[in-house]
Amino acid sequence: MERKKNRVEVCFSPLLYPLYEDPENIVVVVDILRATSSIITAFHNGVDRLIPVRTIEEARAYKEKGYLIAAERDGKVLDFADFGNSPDNFTPERIRGRTIVYSTTNGTQAIQMAGRSRQVLVGGFLNISALARYLLQQKRNVLILCAAWKNKFSLEDSVFAGALTDRLLESGAFDTICDSAHAARDLWLLAESDLVKYIDKAANRSRLRRLGLDSAIEYCHTQDVTDVIPVLEGNTLVRLDKS
Amino acid sequence: MERKKNRVEVCFSPLLYPLYEDPENIVVVVDILRATSSIITAFHNGVDRLIPVRTIEEARAYKEKGYLIAAERDGKVLDFADFGNSPDNFTPERIRGRTIVYSTTNGTQAIQMAGRSRQVLVGGFLNISALARYLLQQKRNVLILCAAWKNKFSLEDSVFAGALTDRLLESGAFDTICDSAHAARDLWLLAESDLVKYIDKAANRSRLRRLGLDSAIEYCHTQDVTDVIPVLEGNTLVRLDKS
Repeated sequence: MERKKNRVEVCFSPLLYPLYEDPENIVVVVDILRATSSIITAFHNGVDRLIPVRTIEEARAYKEKGYLIAAERDGKVLDFADFGNSPDNFTPERIRGRTIVYSTTNGTQAIQMAGRSRQVLVGGFLNISALARYLLQQKRNVLILCAAWKNKFSLEDSVFAGALTDRLLESGAFDTICDSAHAARDLWLLAESDLVKYIDKAANRSRLRRLGLDSAIEYCHTQDVTDVIPVLEGNTLVRLDKS
Repeated sequence: MERKKNRVEVCFSPLLYPLYEDPENIVVVVDILRATSSIITAFHNGVDRLIPVRTIEEARAYKEKGYLIAAERDGKVLDFADFGNSPDNFTPERIRGRTIVYSTTNGTQAIQMAGRSRQVLVGGFLNISALARYLLQQKRNVLILCAAWKNKFSLEDSVFAGALTDRLLESGAFDTICDSAHAARDLWLLAESDLVKYIDKAANRSRLRRLGLDSAIEYCHTQDVTDVIPVLEGNTLVRLDKS
């Protein structure tokens, strides 16, 4: 007998999340530029725990308790922070074995709102193959939640959602009747042959260019830099294989 | 001196509309399957005024005042209604010169929420060229608002948004930094050569097939059946050239 297929869905904005919420879902949160790419990099480079926070005030409160803080606004590292939010800040010598507090608006909102589902994973191009392999083993429904930009549809997050959807559907173990999943997959198939060129028209791309943070773009769209998958435990992210 | 370009944006769900709202926008509301396609057809066939309402109760109240009512739920014409919601109900002999109350959930919500913008137009493949020509004359910013399906991203509405975006951008008079507009346009360029085949994977497509309402699909995806553009006046839709 053929095994019942699992469902994969895509949610383009945290504002739409209540329409897709299901306590049985595994939720993959994605914020390619840059929160989830940075978080994956941090775990790849040996961070022990990572606490995502939304506000500068929360980050400052953690600083006063002695935590290492990654926080910037408008491309500038905040005065009390130890470093900024780009992935290249998370070097092994700075972070190995440490707990980091990471201040981000879009990414943290998405991670926190998914907290009541069965499992919350942090995804990006950097760990896409490891993520796909893990999801194929779980035999559970998957929702890919795009962090978006201030709740607006984001091209790079959606293209990633399409790439992961494509892996799951191609396996034959998943199916979908979700229009967002179909659309995201089609965008990925368009973008796949030259991903960085494709997302050149994304608003976030221009934003980072203006801020002089261009260097992160290509890295954040590189596939399979690591097999590490961050997972949410309470309000803290840890490595899945150490959770 | 080059004229400043106008902006075109796309909003994929009424839930996201507050992020895009601007009292200076011309808003084009789209609900391809089937509200805006039916409304355009009604005006093409000579309806005088059309009142969109959300609930069955509102429709029933209008019925008691003697209005002609188009209303169905789950593909069945409601007992008090004069006919259903599909475009083929709106024949000239039934509706010419009349006022119709049209009961729809997704479409009406979108039309009503856009009511505070400069102008609300009803769009679909059926009137796309007339719509593009009109918008190019106005020299105003345009927002294409997808009615969606219970607030979830809808493939056919988004592909239409992409088709209209493509017309406006190709004219050279519009530009955009809206990721949804770029994505919608790319979906349209994928779908364009065989639109009905492309939207075969849309959830709404399957829904209508199950309800035996398949016949409306091809018609609702036909371009330029009419030059008529419905426009909102107060809570009532009228023909733009008679408003």
